Amino acid sequence: MKRLTDPQEIMEKSKKYNLHSWSAQKKLSPKVITRAEGIYFWDGDGKRYYDMSSQLVNMNIGHGNKKVIAAIQEQAEKLPFISPACAIDVRSQVAEMIIDVAPDNMGKVFFTLAGAEANENAIKIAKMVTGRHKIFSRYRSYHGATYGAANLTGEPRRYTCEPGIPGFIKFFDPYIYQAPIRFENEEAATAYYLARLREQILYEGRDQIAAIVLESVTGSNGGIIPPKGYMQGVRDLCTEFGIMMVCDEVMAGWGRTGEWFAIDNYHVQPDMITFAKGITCGYVPLGGVIVSREIADHFDENVLYCGLTYSGHPMGCAAGIATLGVYKELNLIARAKERGVLLGNILEDLREKHPCVGEVRYIGLFSAIELVKDRATHEPIVPYGSDPHKIMPRILGMLMARGFSTYTHENCIMIAPPLIITEKELKDAMAIMDEVLTEVDAMI
Amino acid sequence: MKRLTDPQEIMEKSKKYNLHSWSAQKKLSPKVITRAEGIYFWDGDGKRYYDMSSQLVNMNIGHGNKKVIAAIQEQAEKLPFISPACAIDVRSQVAEMIIDVAPDNMGKVFFTLAGAEANENAIKIAKMVTGRHKIFSRYRSYHGATYGAANLTGEPRRYTCEPGIPGFIKFFDPYIYQAPIRFENEEAATAYYLARLREQILYEGRDQIAAIVLESVTGSNGGIIPPKGYMQGVRDLCTEFGIMMVCDEVMAGWGRTGEWFAIDNYHVQPDMITFAKGITCGYVPLGGVIVSREIADHFDENVLYCGLTYSGHPMGCAAGIATLGVYKELNLIARAKERGVLLGNILEDLREKHPCVGEVRYIGLFSAIELVKDRATHEPIVPYGSDPHKIMPRILGMLMARGFSTYTHENCIMIAPPLIITEKELKDAMAIMDEVLTEVDAMI
Ligand SMILES: Cc1ncc(COP(=O)(O)O)c(C=O)c1O
Ligand SMILES: Cc1ncc(COP(=O)(O)O)c(C=O)c1O
Repeated sequence: MKRLTDPQEIMEKSKKYNLHSWSAQKKLSPKVITRAEGIYFWDGDGKRYYDMSSQLVNMNIGHGNKKVIAAIQEQAEKLPFISPACAIDVRSQVAEMIIDVAPDNMGKVFFTLAGAEANENAIKIAKMVTGRHKIFSRYRSYHGATYGAANLTGEPRRYTCEPGIPGFIKFFDPYIYQAPIRFENEEAATAYYLARLREQILYEGRDQIAAIVLESVTGSNGGIIPPKGYMQGVRDLCTEFGIMMVCDEVMAGWGRTGEWFAIDNYHVQPDMITFAKGITCGYVPLGGVIVSREIADHFDENVLYCGLTYSGHPMGCAAGIATLGVYKELNLIARAKERGVLLGNILEDLREKHPCVGEVRYIGLFSAIELVKDRATHEPIVPYGSDPHKIMPRILGMLMARGFSTYTHENCIMIAPPLIITEKELKDAMAIMDEVLTEVDAMI
Repeated sequence: MKRLTDPQEIMEKSKKYNLHSWSAQKKLSPKVITRAEGIYFWDGDGKRYYDMSSQLVNMNIGHGNKKVIAAIQEQAEKLPFISPACAIDVRSQVAEMIIDVAPDNMGKVFFTLAGAEANENAIKIAKMVTGRHKIFSRYRSYHGATYGAANLTGEPRRYTCEPGIPGFIKFFDPYIYQAPIRFENEEAATAYYLARLREQILYEGRDQIAAIVLESVTGSNGGIIPPKGYMQGVRDLCTEFGIMMVCDEVMAGWGRTGEWFAIDNYHVQPDMITFAKGITCGYVPLGGVIVSREIADHFDENVLYCGLTYSGHPMGCAAGIATLGVYKELNLIARAKERGVLLGNILEDLREKHPCVGEVRYIGLFSAIELVKDRATHEPIVPYGSDPHKIMPRILGMLMARGFSTYTHENCIMIAPPLIITEKELKDAMAIMDEVLTEVDAMI
C-alpha cells in the first residue's frame, strides 16, 4: 500500500472517513501529526509541542523509546498472536513482573486491552467473588465508556449509558476545595467523607455491596488527591462489610504519582487494581485487573466468567515487559517523585501569582490547575457541565498556540508530562503556562 | 529482559500469574505455544496442529504473514501511538479502505480495539441517533463480555452481567433445526420468524426500539445461517419502524463467508456493521463500527459521546491496511467461497456417514457440525447449558490429540480454518474429523 503523505489529504480523509471521539464532527480540524520523540510531537506544519499531558496520560516513558520499539518488532516476527487459552513466554513473564511491583497481597493478573474493559472485568469479578450485585463509585470519576465502565463513571460521559444498570450507586468524593462546607483540616474532611460513605453503605444494605471502585488519585475529573487517612478508611469499611476495594489505576498507576501505583502512597492494599495506559504507554494496547491472592484462589474451583479474544495479547505483553524494563532502567518512578517536587513548587508559585488559579493539586508528575472566577468563593471559571462561551477551549487554544499540549476538563487544566522530562524542559514548558494564566487573569 | 524459554517454566508461571478466561483455574494445563506458521501452530513438545478454527476465528490470513509483520515493524518505528484526536496517515487510510469494501450506504468508521467495544459503541450510537433506548438481540448469540455487549449476548456468558440493563430485549433466532415446529421449507420458516419479530416489536413499542443487533451469520452459537429472505425481512422491519439494523460481523466478516461481509451474501444494507478479528487477524488488536452516511451526517452537528484512549490505534491501523492488502493480493475472499464448496461437500459426506451428526451448516469457510443423540428427534448430544459428563470436552480432546485444533460450543463443533488453506490441507484435516466422528458414533 502506498502511504498517504500529504498532510492536507490526511486531514481531509480523516474528516471524511473517521468518526472522532466526544465531538460533533463538522467543525473539527484534527491536527495532523507526523512525528513524536521524547516529550515532544510535531504537527504537519513542523510545529513542535511539549506533550504536557503525555497524550491521554499514557505516554509515561515518552515517545519513540527504542527498547520498546525493538521488543514490539521482535514479537511481531516471533508470534504476534495466539489464543489467550495458551501459555506463552511473554504472557507469563509480564504477569510475573506486574505482580512483583504490585502491593504484597496481589496474586494474579487478568489481561484486557485497555482501561474500560479492565474496570468491566473488575466489577464482574467482584460480583462473582461476593455473590452480591451493588457497585459503589464516585461522582467525580471517569472509568471508561463501555456500559459497565460508564455506569461506574460519575461525570456526564455516563449519560449515554443510561437508563443505568441496576445497583450502580454513586457517592461523593473528598473534593474538599468545592465542598459546601469548609473543613478545619484534612483529618476533619476525611472523617466527614468516611462517615457519609459508611452511612450510605448501611442505607444500601451492608451485605448487598460487591465493590467500591475508586481512582486512587482522581485524574481527569480534577486531579483530586485523597486527604490524609481517607484511603485507609475506605479499606477499613470494605474489610468491615466484606466489600471488594477496587482501585482504578488506569491513569494514576505506573509511576505517574512517584510510586508504582498511586495507592502505594497511602500504604493500603486494595483487593483489585485495574490498569492500562502506563503498562505499555500505549505503544501497543494492554490493560488488566490485578487481583489479590485471595481472589485468585477463589477461581481455582470457581469458573471465571471473563474473557475476550485478545486477552493477554502477545504484542501487548511484549511491549509491557519492555516498558517495565524502561521504568526500572531509567529509575523513572523515583524520578517522577523528585521531579514532582519541582512541579509542585512551580504550581504553588503560579497560584500565588494568578488570581484565576483557585487551587493547584499535585502528586508526582500528576497535577491539575483549578481555575476560578473568584478565589474567595471558589466559584469555578465555568459552571459544572456547561461552558457556553467556550472559555476552557479558548484557554486550551492559547496553550496549544504556544506549543503547550494538554487537555482540560470542566474548570481544570491537567498537567502530566512524560516522566522522562528534564528540569529545564519542565521549567520552560511551565513558563508558557505562566504567560497564558496572565491572560486568563484578564478574562475573569 | 531475558525471555523465558523452558516450556515447563512458561506453563507453571502461566498457572501462577495468569487468570485464564472462562475457566476454573486449578485443573487447567494450558498448552505452551512457541511457533505458528500458515494454518499450523506448534506446542512446547514440537507437536503440530491444524488451526481449524483460525484461533478464535480471527486468523483468516494465517499465521506469520510477512507483509503484515513488516507493516507492524515499520509503524512501531514511525509512530506507535498518538491520541485519537489527531489525524494520521494510517488512521485515515484504513478507514477509507474499509468504506471501500463495505456496503454502498456506509460512510465512516469509529475505531475500537476489539469486538465487545465495537458492539458497545454501536448500541450507544443507535440510542443517540434515534433518541430511543430499547435494544433487541437474539438468544443464540455472543456479542462480547463487557456489560453492554454481554447484555446483547443471549447465551449464558450474559448472566454475570445481570441484573441486566433496562430495555435489552431478546428475540428468537431462526434456528430451524432445533425449532419446536417443523417448517415446510425455508420460506415458511422465514415468514414465521419475521412475523414473531414484528409482533414482539409491536408489544415492546413500535417507537421505543433503537436497534436490532444480530450476527449476520451466527458464529459460536451454532453457525446458524439465516434462511432465505430473513435478512431482507429484518431490514424491512427496521426501516418500517425507524430501528437501526446493526450487523455484528466480528466473526463473520472479512471474507469468512466468501464475501467481504456476511451480510453481502443477502444483498442487504444494514445501518451499522461492527467488526474486529479479521480486520487485522489479531496481529494487533483493532475493531470498530462502520456507520451509514446517514448516521455519519447526524454527528456533523450532534456530539458523538463515544471514546477510548486507543481509538484508531496507529499500530492496529497499520496492521489493518496490510491485512486488507493481503486479502486482495491473495484473492482470499473469492478463495474462501471456492474452498467453501469443498468444505461443504466434505461436511455433507460426514453427515451421511455418521449417525452422531444431526446437521452440518456452512457458508464459505465458516461452518459447524451439530452433534445429536438421535437424528430422528434432533435431541442434542448434550442438553443446552449443561454437560455433566464432559462429553464435548472429550470430543475436543480426541481432535486435539490427533492434531486438529478447534473449539466446541454446546453441542456444536466449529470449523473455520484460515482462508489460505489448500484443498489438500482441508481434506487431510477433515479426515481426522471423520475418524473422531466414528468414535463419537460409538458413544451415542
Ligand atoms: C481512571 C481511568 N479509568 C479508565 C479509563 C478508560 O480507559 P480506556 O480509555 O483505555 O478504556 C480512563 C481513561 O482515560 C481513566 O482515566
Ligand atoms: C460475533 C461476535 N461478536 C463479538 C465478539 C466479541 O469480540 P471480542 O472478544 O474481541 O471482544 C465475538 C467474540 O468471539 C464474536 O464472535
